[in-house]
Amino acid sequence: MAALGDREILYIGIDGGGSKCRASILNSDNRVLGTGISGPANPLHGYAQTIDSIVRSATLALSDAGLPPQALGELVAGVGLAGVNMPSLYNEMDAWAHPFKQMFLTTDQHSACLGAHRGGDGAVIIAGTGSCGYAWVNGEARLLGGHGFPHGDKGSGAWMGMEAVKYLFLALDGLAEDSRLKDELLSALESTDAQQVFERIGGKSSSHYARLAVPVVEYAEAGDPVALAIVSDGASYINDLADKLFEMNAPRLSLIGGVAPRLKQWMAPHVVERVAEALDPPEFGCVYFARQCVAEAASGSAGAIEADGKALFG
Amino acid sequence: MAALGDREILYIGIDGGGSKCRASILNSDNRVLGTGISGPANPLHGYAQTIDSIVRSATLALSDAGLPPQALGELVAGVGLAGVNMPSLYNEMDAWAHPFKQMFLTTDQHSACLGAHRGGDGAVIIAGTGSCGYAWVNGEARLLGGHGFPHGDKGSGAWMGMEAVKYLFLALDGLAEDSRLKDELLSALESTDAQQVFERIGGKSSSHYARLAVPVVEYAEAGDPVALAIVSDGASYINDLADKLFEMNAPRLSLIGGVAPRLKQWMAPHVVERVAEALDPPEFGCVYFARQCVAEAASGSAGAIEADGKALFG
Repeated sequence: MAALGDREILYIGIDGGGSKCRASILNSDNRVLGTGISGPANPLHGYAQTIDSIVRSATLALSDAGLPPQALGELVAGVGLAGVNMPSLYNEMDAWAHPFKQMFLTTDQHSACLGAHRGGDGAVIIAGTGSCGYAWVNGEARLLGGHGFPHGDKGSGAWMGMEAVKYLFLALDGLAEDSRLKDELLSALESTDAQQVFERIGGKSSSHYARLAVPVVEYAEAGDPVALAIVSDGASYINDLADKLFEMNAPRLSLIGGVAPRLKQWMAPHVVERVAEALDPPEFGCVYFARQCVAEAASGSAGAIEADGKALFG
Repeated sequence: MAALGDREILYIGIDGGGSKCRASILNSDNRVLGTGISGPANPLHGYAQTIDSIVRSATLALSDAGLPPQALGELVAGVGLAGVNMPSLYNEMDAWAHPFKQMFLTTDQHSACLGAHRGGDGAVIIAGTGSCGYAWVNGEARLLGGHGFPHGDKGSGAWMGMEAVKYLFLALDGLAEDSRLKDELLSALESTDAQQVFERIGGKSSSHYARLAVPVVEYAEAGDPVALAIVSDGASYINDLADKLFEMNAPRLSLIGGVAPRLKQWMAPHVVERVAEALDPPEFGCVYFARQCVAEAASGSAGAIEADGKALFG
């Protein structure tokens, strides 16, 4: 078993969201020494579970790297979390008596953006269950969208699922045209009538709705007009996000999440041609963030990244 | 104080919904002898509260009529309730060991429709917090819409509020045009930015969203293009409901609820010219329903109104 010497500082990047928390320990060459995955880590849904998931993923990453659990106290952690663009949650998490040598906290959008552009300036559009746009340029953040389900997050999987369910109810009442999508949705919801559809999906969480995005995208790809109308409307919103992010002079734009890359085929050509692959995953972005914080502290500069996170909230 | 003799059967009509329960005792000439209003009576939100509200409104109506509380057991009750188009809730309520001489249970749509057409055939479009269409023709019910918030109930107050909030988030991100409606919505939500809007309304119930329908309709009446787009879309759905109800040969159509009459100005002329005033309120419809049940029982006919309510569910 290897032991942490005083040769180099090891960084751990921890990316936490509503469904899981992923940690990677990197050496100074950005080589992954170990990775750990644990449960949900969104402080909006529970502080205790969030810190438990963070510690658990970090301990698993240490074990994966062949390092002992007590090495936790020697790691410098960059933590990117969903939910902490709410200042109250940021402050709560930032006040945590964490077990690391140092911890630097930011939003999951910021860490995803830093990861996608290998620590450099750029923008991301994240569309999975939810959706948002984020740019980090010249030390300034801009967050667009991300207002939540069902009143926001257009173009996301949950939004597509909701649009599909709205259509399904109309079609079942004879108030919208029939389509193959209707039959597919009924089948996906194991339903034959509106009452059953209501019981399967009514009042359910965004992730339930997001599952219906799969048939919507597939049927759109097969040319179904109803599905096409939904994905086109979603793609048009993603175009609008992209145009706003370009206005900020973001040098690169990446599409992240399970849904965004699938929508590319319906997005505007001038947007698509400027989309660049994400270079590294969000955990790497967490490490880049922590390194920037350490470097700025060493240079004595308060820099763009305020300790109270104010610069992060766009 | 009057006492119930054996001269005539007194009927009580009880109309229960998500916010209140209203009871009226009618004599055989449909004269109101007494009225009582109590709290919520939607069994979807609680069985105990529902039966409590029913008994309370009935007791208040007895008192208003100058009759003693023990006269409850001499009243024939027609009860129209929200929620009981779900068979499980219908059966639960129907199995209640009620305090009346007899109780006949139906949906609030059915009682509203019978009230609007003084016991005759016809159709109603109900749009307040929620929305639906309902026709009762030749002993057959047809329910359209009414699938709930936020996936259904287009054209309702809650739907208009949701559309307004979606627009507001887009406008705050610079992704939709500014309008006077934006400022009005911010003021109604006592907010100045997206974070505050989210805290005021995000994840709130349909009735919170429905409150925003007031500025939407007012601004549409004043010509605001964003508000006009919302109400026009809602009115177009109401038109579609009306056309489907006309296909059922409903001899009359009435618009009921806080929102439906306000949308008339944006509805299609061929629909508007066929809209007729509701003749009586829903509590009267509850009494008409109970009388029909009693008459059919007396004639030995099972009739169109099944004891298990199956005919009601459209």
